[in-house]
Amino acid sequence: MNKSAIIVAGGKGTRMGSPIPKQYLEIGGKPVLMHTLEVFYQLDAQIRLILVIPEVDMDFWIELCDKFDFEIPHQLVAGGPSRFQSVKNGLNAIADTQGVVAIHDGVRPFVSPSVIAESFRMASQYGSAIAVVPLKDSIRKLTDEGKSFYQERQYFRLVQTPQTFDLVRIKKAFDVTELHHFTDDATVFEHQGWQVHLIAGNAENIKITSPEDMDYAQFLLLKS
Amino acid sequence: MNKSAIIVAGGKGTRMGSPIPKQYLEIGGKPVLMHTLEVFYQLDAQIRLILVIPEVDMDFWIELCDKFDFEIPHQLVAGGPSRFQSVKNGLNAIADTQGVVAIHDGVRPFVSPSVIAESFRMASQYGSAIAVVPLKDSIRKLTDEGKSFYQERQYFRLVQTPQTFDLVRIKKAFDVTELHHFTDDATVFEHQGWQVHLIAGNAENIKITSPEDMDYAQFLLLKS
Repeated sequence: MNKSAIIVAGGKGTRMGSPIPKQYLEIGGKPVLMHTLEVFYQLDAQIRLILVIPEVDMDFWIELCDKFDFEIPHQLVAGGPSRFQSVKNGLNAIADTQGVVAIHDGVRPFVSPSVIAESFRMASQYGSAIAVVPLKDSIRKLTDEGKSFYQERQYFRLVQTPQTFDLVRIKKAFDVTELHHFTDDATVFEHQGWQVHLIAGNAENIKITSPEDMDYAQFLLLKS
Repeated sequence: MNKSAIIVAGGKGTRMGSPIPKQYLEIGGKPVLMHTLEVFYQLDAQIRLILVIPEVDMDFWIELCDKFDFEIPHQLVAGGPSRFQSVKNGLNAIADTQGVVAIHDGVRPFVSPSVIAESFRMASQYGSAIAVVPLKDSIRKLTDEGKSFYQERQYFRLVQTPQTFDLVRIKKAFDVTELHHFTDDATVFEHQGWQVHLIAGNAENIKITSPEDMDYAQFLLLKS
């Protein structure tokens, strides 16, 4: 079974004067993205790694790899104007006619190896495997009229990545025009009328998007 | 305007052989509960502080106060068999005929003073003020048949404390038989047919319930 992983770090490219995107910032001595790639590589060096970043960042990334002696083999693919387009570009870079592919946020370096392994197993069995975690807090739903209502939290799951799929099916699913509600890969897959299979993610698998997240990331690295 | 705060740390009492509840464990040199009481006291020493803990823990708590030279004035009230009953006991300890009361989880020491201040302001204006935060991740809803569906996350809020109320109204709201869906104070208030008013909470205001939360709490204290 061919295994691939598309690590998506599209977002905005690095521009003069704008802050450096979190994926390139250092935690525990190297950029976030290198930690993320390492988790997959250390789990199974046979997983083909595809890193999707903005085209304008490619030289910068290559310099970073040089600077940090980063030698994990990976293929660089240029991102698109949206996450959907970035993932689609990553999928187009896979020529295999069968296999499974994990799609994972570049800024989630704390995914556990066991979650990745389970996502590959379940996706090859069920066609998809979406990592989710239960809510720790109560949850309310807002209405357009500015009211809010209690919801039973046990019916909800927070969605993480990896979102892992049968390669043929996810390629077919991405062969559509992008829709507004495509907030992740699961929604693209579902748009074909297919149900997604949920698996348990790990709580530490946060998406690093704010300065506070960077602090928390440092903390997780220190205690591990 | 009379201001009170009920700090709820009901839960299970400390028993021989069982682990000590998180509220009594030390972070940054003193028990979690002392940090929580301090946030309210330092914001406004006029806020009447009511601490609800299991009756069997009272001697233990008094010893802790002695050991840590904890001198912030507060009234001790015995908790009940459920959170609802514990809050109700706290409310019964307030003899005022008008005012506002914040109800706050004892294991949320990282609530920001500005959120507490805003909750008192908004509760005196609207009758209630519930601290909530937006979701950082996508969210799915499960069905009883084992399927799951995409939900638009901008319509959801995670609920924290403080949940602050007009004293007269919240006392009336708690003067009912406890229902299964009373997961927090907002749901009790709503049961009267009253809408709750939401305010923005602070992201660090986590509920310390797991050993990992304790580690993170230590970290937050160190960096502040």
